[in-house]
Formats: sequence, structure tokens, C-alpha cells
Amino acid sequence: MIKILNYNELSYDEIFARFEPTSSVEDVVSDIIKTVRANGDKALFDYTARFDKAQLTALQVTKEEIEEAGSIVEPKFIDILERAAKNIRKFHEAQKRQSLIINDEDGIVTGQKIIPVDRAGLYVPGGTAAYPSTVLMDAIPAKIAGVKEVVMVTPPSADGKVNPAILAAASVAGIDKIFKVGGAQAIAALAYGTESVPKVDKIVGPGNAFVAEAKKQVFGTVSIDMIAGPSEILVVADEKSNPRYVAADLLSQAEHDKNASAVLVTDSMALAQAVSEELEKQIPLLDRAEIARASIDNNGKIIVADNLNVVVDIANEIAPEHLELCVDNPFDWLDKIRHAGSIFMGRNCPEALGDYFAGPNHTLPTSGTAKFSSPLSVDDFVKKTQYTYYTADALKRVAEDVAFFARKEGLTGHAKSAVIRTRPEDEA
Amino acid sequence: MIKILNYNELSYDEIFARFEPTSSVEDVVSDIIKTVRANGDKALFDYTARFDKAQLTALQVTKEEIEEAGSIVEPKFIDILERAAKNIRKFHEAQKRQSLIINDEDGIVTGQKIIPVDRAGLYVPGGTAAYPSTVLMDAIPAKIAGVKEVVMVTPPSADGKVNPAILAAASVAGIDKIFKVGGAQAIAALAYGTESVPKVDKIVGPGNAFVAEAKKQVFGTVSIDMIAGPSEILVVADEKSNPRYVAADLLSQAEHDKNASAVLVTDSMALAQAVSEELEKQIPLLDRAEIARASIDNNGKIIVADNLNVVVDIANEIAPEHLELCVDNPFDWLDKIRHAGSIFMGRNCPEALGDYFAGPNHTLPTSGTAKFSSPLSVDDFVKKTQYTYYTADALKRVAEDVAFFARKEGLTGHAKSAVIRTRPEDEA
Repeated sequence: MIKILNYNELSYDEIFARFEPTSSVEDVVSDIIKTVRANGDKALFDYTARFDKAQLTALQVTKEEIEEAGSIVEPKFIDILERAAKNIRKFHEAQKRQSLIINDEDGIVTGQKIIPVDRAGLYVPGGTAAYPSTVLMDAIPAKIAGVKEVVMVTPPSADGKVNPAILAAASVAGIDKIFKVGGAQAIAALAYGTESVPKVDKIVGPGNAFVAEAKKQVFGTVSIDMIAGPSEILVVADEKSNPRYVAADLLSQAEHDKNASAVLVTDSMALAQAVSEELEKQIPLLDRAEIARASIDNNGKIIVADNLNVVVDIANEIAPEHLELCVDNPFDWLDKIRHAGSIFMGRNCPEALGDYFAGPNHTLPTSGTAKFSSPLSVDDFVKKTQYTYYTADALKRVAEDVAFFARKEGLTGHAKSAVIRTRPEDEA
Repeated sequence: MIKILNYNELSYDEIFARFEPTSSVEDVVSDIIKTVRANGDKALFDYTARFDKAQLTALQVTKEEIEEAGSIVEPKFIDILERAAKNIRKFHEAQKRQSLIINDEDGIVTGQKIIPVDRAGLYVPGGTAAYPSTVLMDAIPAKIAGVKEVVMVTPPSADGKVNPAILAAASVAGIDKIFKVGGAQAIAALAYGTESVPKVDKIVGPGNAFVAEAKKQVFGTVSIDMIAGPSEILVVADEKSNPRYVAADLLSQAEHDKNASAVLVTDSMALAQAVSEELEKQIPLLDRAEIARASIDNNGKIIVADNLNVVVDIANEIAPEHLELCVDNPFDWLDKIRHAGSIFMGRNCPEALGDYFAGPNHTLPTSGTAKFSSPLSVDDFVKKTQYTYYTADALKRVAEDVAFFARKEGLTGHAKSAVIRTRPEDEA
């Protein structure tokens, strides 16, 4: 049963404390990474035999395997994948940025160019956490950014095959190469390269504790998206909200993971009680009822506060991954939301719409990191470079100032490089 | 003496291998962080007494101290700081992004908002590495991003005072609060907050091995800019280049640090030899001759390649922090440069111009991370949030597809949250 709590009677930690993952896999992961760096493909074959029970003869998924997957998956699903991809493309196309140039002073040009990374790697979990939607969400922004080669890694099942729905999504997303390797060994391969797997510049995608730790350990050698924590939803709902809808939305996160957290914050005790009852009705109907039950009982919360302004303050402090605004005029409240990964506006916008279809990304900052992190976007697959151009005359106007500043920092070499071009040779 | 090397005779590692820092301070740093989390200000006073030999009674720099610094620093320097700040502001203003909205389908609105982080922390080293230019470069983008509170931390000298040039730069940059604390303890204070030092969302700024390790350890709790390696310059120069200028520019990085690397890549053996001779003439004239000597002798390189196209390929593979293009028509080459932190174009653009004055940022990706990282910018101090709005009719058009996709992933709770609003109650 979900806990109903009165905001005014709660301590800070009772409201805001979160699941803190403890990693005990650092050493295992660092061994795996070392072994992959040293032994390349051989290590990948060995680990795949050991962890995935698959005896592979080649790591890369062939064209034939991809075509076969396309014929297994029902056409209706391919059609939905393509329409979802269209919405995701439209949203992410709008994120593309222009390079900039400033040239409003005689003889001076400065600017910033946006350049895609050369190669990106996408981790896709296997087993029950193999989500074709994540393939679309992670690969499409990379392709729109202009990344020349998008590489996917995913663990095979024991028969050496990859989930056909994943391969179908990879085709729709336009992924260039797919390798049958998972776990920390896959992350190591992407970070350092092996005979088969090319080294990438950016690694994205969710994974288990080994994958998360491996991403952490290779961070710096490559760029990573984020270390994602358990899924979270926070529903802001007023008294007019339909408790059936609110309960269904809470459960759509709770069913992900026993550590997932589903929180309702409301100004209505009546709604709180009705949602609590609805949860009890709906949980048993879910395929993943056991997971949802654990999540709701352990991490679920309904916080009742005095009014919607307080409710929104609580939401900002929690900075949830997903935030629903179940109110009449959600755009009136949008400006007040400072910290949330993705916001679902109004009474007809279940978070699941965003997981699959609406277009905004579903790879989102968790654990309160929405205070400083962003949803995955085209920006993750580009980097900026700056440039500066001065003519000889333009340099002359400022060289002595630059040298003065440099000497103030004790850097006479910097000073000299500025004035050597503008002073007579014997004075520079 | 710098090494002159023929590109065609070199192995990959001889060209591209870089300084690899080894950290042996993890345990010390994690102890410091734990102690600051447990003891707050008391720990900061203790560590400052121990490491900086300063007995403080208050951590925050007072208004009086800032005013005193303003009266110590010569007016000419304040004037230069202000003109530099003007250029830095102009460049970074151009980086500001608009929020976006997409509303081209009936009843559907999606969008992305750009929101500044609530609070940013800026680390400024003390001693000889106390650079007022870095105060401007790190604080101005935060203020332009709209960060409400920008907090600076910097270690005091043994008399409990902060370098007046640093305080003057902090005033020009508009920093809101300054605290006398350095090292890993300062990073811990910014990441977790103490009685005096507010917890921030983003920490930026350079520092020694302890600071770098502390930033690494608090990464995730807060956002950090980057773990910077030693300074680097790569000069691309043709045969027409003036060897005096090229040598001076190489030394402007070499003087930073014994581990700094200064590399010339050219198609002219004559230039290579002339620059080598010039380096020998200019090194002894530097205040920091000993450092520059070590950097040039140990890490300096002149690589001679067959032609400028090969030269540019080498530059891209090295992906240097600073890249100079000492050629006649640098804009002809700009598009070929894919990986560099900051590019200095033409014969009149010493890198020092960018360190202090031109406007582009001087906090740049090192160690080849320009392949996937960017110069510090306004983007570092904002995050994005997405939003999605569907009317009841718009939801109805897609709810069954969303549910189909969700069930394909085994997530019946997701499916239900989509259809509960559109199907009759007994079928949802």
C-alpha cells in the first residue's frame, strides 16, 4: 500500500531522500576493461561465452541476420516504429544548432562551429530490458547530429541471436554496425576499440550495474551520456484529477524496477485516498505486478500539501525524471517548473506517450540530476570548436594590453608572443 | 632542444601518445570529502590551517576585503580586465539559446526549454597558478546563462588573504560570493554544502591533482566542467611562417607546466630547423625558463610532413587544446579542422590573444578530448527540459499505437496508462 504523507509533518529527508546505489563491482569491471584492452576480440568472445552462454564465431551482426529479423517482426510493429521515428526525428531536428560568427570590429572575426563526433556507440541491454524504443531514442539524435558511424552493442541470447525487435528498431533508426556483445566488455570495446569493434567518441544507453560502472570507468577516454538511476515519476495533480488515470501513470514507472519511484504530490487528500485505492485495484492486473507492488510499497509516496504552489516547490526540489502536470491549464504552470527531465502537460498526457511516440527523448536525467543535466539530445553528439582571427592591425591595437595582462599572471612567454609581432625586433 | 621528426618514419604512438596522469591521491581525497560532509565548516577551517597555513575566523571574503583589493590593484589592470570582460561577454552572449516549440499538428505541442542551473561554483587556484583571466572566463558564461548565484572558492595565503588581482577580476565578472578555501575540501564544500558554503549544481575551474580527483569523485552529485590535463599547443605552419613568432607561440604554452606540450607540424624542414634554433634563443629570456626548457625538451616536437593536407590530418588526430593555423588563408583550412579546442587563425593570432582578450573561452578540452568535448560555454551553465502536451483528441489518435509498442516491450502498465483515457472503463 502506498504511503500518504502530510507535507507539513515531514522532514527534508522523508520527502527528498533517494535510492543510493552502492557499487561493489568496481574491481570486476576494471579487470574486464583491462582484459579487453589487452586481448581485444578474443576477450569479447570469452566473456560472451561466459556471461551470455553464447558461442560466437563472429561479433558483428550480418546483413542477413538483420533481414531475417525484419521478416520475423510483425509489419504493424515496423509501421509503429517508423511513425514513432518520424516524431522523434521532427523533435530532434529542431535541436540542431547553427555555427556562429561575430565580425563587428575591423579586422577581427571570432566564431564557434558545431561539429559532430566522428563515431558514437549505443549500448542496448538484452533480456527483458531490451527496449526497441531506446534504440530509436538514442540513435536518432546521433544521426541527426551528423555522426558518420553509429555503432550498437547488445548481448546475444544463448543461441547467439539478437532480439529481432531490437534489430528492427536499429534498421529504422539507421544504425550502421551492430555487435553481439554486452556488459562491461562491450563498453570497454567501444571505449578502446578491438579488431572488430571500432573505438567511439561517445557512449550512450542504459545498462545494468556492470555497464554503469564500466561507463564511469571509461569516462574521460570517451564521453558518456549519464549514469542513469532507477526510473522516477512525479505526478502533480489537483483535486479534479481522475484517480484512475493518476494511478495508471504512477504504475507505468513502478512496473519498471523495484527501485523505481512513483510519487504523487497533490493539494487534495480526497484525491490521495482515491489514488491509493486505485493503485490497489490496478496493481494485480499488471504483467509485472510483483515489481510494481515492491516499487509502490517501498518507494511510492503520496505527499499532500496545502496548495499547488507548494506542490510545485516540492516538485522542483525533487527534480524528477518524469513530471506530470495534471491540472486544467498546464501552460500556466510551465514557467514555474525549473527542474524536471521531461514534463507531461495536462490530463491527457500519460508519460508513456513520451516513452514511445511523442518525439521528445526518453533518456532522461534521474536521481535529481535534472537540476544540472538534460535529456539526451542532438547536443550530446556534437562538440563545439572556437576560432579567432585578427589582422596585423587588429593585433596591434591590443597587443600591449594582452602583454600587460600576461605579465600580471607571471607569464612572460605569453606576453612575448603578443608583442613579438608588433614591436621592433630588438624590443620584442 | 626540441626533437625534429619525420612524419613518415614515425609510429602512431611516437606522434600521438600523450602524458597520462597517474593519480595516487584517491584515498586522501575521499577522506577529505567524507570529513567535509561530516563536519562542514569546521573541516574547512582545519584543512585550511593544515594545508594553507592560514588561521581563519571566517570563510567568506568580506565586502571590505574586496574593496581593499580594488584599491591595491593598479587602475590600468582594472581597465584591461574590463575591456577583456566586454569581449568575453560579447562572444558568450552569442551562445545563448532560445527555447523551442513545435506545434504543427492539431492538439499537440512539444518543446524544449533552456533553464540556467540555480547555483554555480568556480574553483580558482592560489599561488603562482592564480589566474585572474580564468576568473573572467569561468564566471562570465555562468552570469550570461542566468545563474542566480555564482560562488567562487580559492585558497588563501598564509596571512589569510586572497590575491587582490583575483578579487578584482571577481568584481569585474560579477561573482556573488567568495570563500577562502582551496583543494579537495573546497570541491567537497561546493558539492555538498556546509554552514557557510552553499551547495552548487555545477563546479568549474582548473586545479591541482587533489582538486581534479575531488571533481571526479563528486561528479554525479554535481555536474563538473572537465578534468583538464596539461596545456597543449599545436602550431600548423607553412614555409612562409616567421620562426620567431612560431617559437614564441610554442613557448607561451611550454612555460605553463613541465608536462605541457608544444608541437609544431609543418611541411617545411627549413622552418623546422629555424624554429628549433629560435626556441634555444628565446627560452633563456623567459621568467619561467626552467619550466619551458623541461616542457620543450621532454614533450616538445616538430613533426615534418609531406604537405599541408597531411599536416591537418595529424592535427585532427591529435585534437589539440589550442591550434594555430599559421598560413596565408586560414579560412580556406577552417572546414578541414574537425577536432581542436580553440583555433587561432593566420599569422597574427598568437594563442595568448585568446587566453586573455579576444572573447572565446580559454577553458578548453585537453588530451585529445576535443574529439568529443567543447570549450567552456554558456551551455555548461544551463540544462534543458522537454515538455509534451496532447489534447484528449490528439491522444485518442495514437493511444492504441502507444499501447501496442508498450506491450511489445512487456510493459502492460505503460500500455494501460495510454488507453485508460481513451477506452470505455470496462475495456481499459
